[in-house]
Amino acid sequence: MSNVYDKAHELSRTIRESEEFQQLKQLHEAVEQDEIAKRMLDNFRQLQLNLLQKEQQGQVPTEQEITEAQKQMELVQQHEMISKLMAEEQRVSTLIGDVSKIITEPLEELYGVPDQE
Amino acid sequence: MSNVYDKAHELSRTIRESEEFQQLKQLHEAVEQDEIAKRMLDNFRQLQLNLLQKEQQGQVPTEQEITEAQKQMELVQQHEMISKLMAEEQRVSTLIGDVSKIITEPLEELYGVPDQE
Ligand SMILES: [Ca+2]
Ligand SMILES: [Ca+2]
Repeated sequence: MSNVYDKAHELSRTIRESEEFQQLKQLHEAVEQDEIAKRMLDNFRQLQLNLLQKEQQGQVPTEQEITEAQKQMELVQQHEMISKLMAEEQRVSTLIGDVSKIITEPLEELYGVPDQE
Repeated sequence: MSNVYDKAHELSRTIRESEEFQQLKQLHEAVEQDEIAKRMLDNFRQLQLNLLQKEQQGQVPTEQEITEAQKQMELVQQHEMISKLMAEEQRVSTLIGDVSKIITEPLEELYGVPDQE
């Protein structure tokens, strides 16, 4: 039992020390310190969140909202630091997703969830 | 990078070898080999799934469905092997949940998700 927790902490440390996570951390801090970039990203995320919440409530976004979301998406994509941050977030997300699949393999085998490899 | 994957595989092996997982596996196999227990558990899970799907579609279960679910719940709770299996599933689920929290701690620290400890 404690062995599982020890190994989990080891893995957590390895993730923290990974090149992916260190890059993400640097970009995250760089954006935090750049007022314009930070506001742009906050706006974008808030807009995405609003659209998602609408969707979850079964509502259809208006044409204006879709246009606004596209405009914000183009803005953040053209911003080098933010687009780098978002690409790095994607890399870390893939890494964590892979790790999660590896860890739940024993359960998949037991419950016969189809293997995705 | 490869180090993260190595550590993830180590952790996965440790989970597979854990007392919790081994117990779960034994109980799972025991139920699979007991036709009556297996049918009772399958029925119960199908019923739970149906109720969940209804709920997700915004529908309210009928009184009859609620009564049936309660009856099935009592049946499985009275069945020693099944109730042991369900308790062990809960233990493994807690273990995996703890592991998952430990692994995502680096991300929590970065994004300021409140620490739950
Ligand atoms: Ca696999
Ligand atoms: Ca913590």
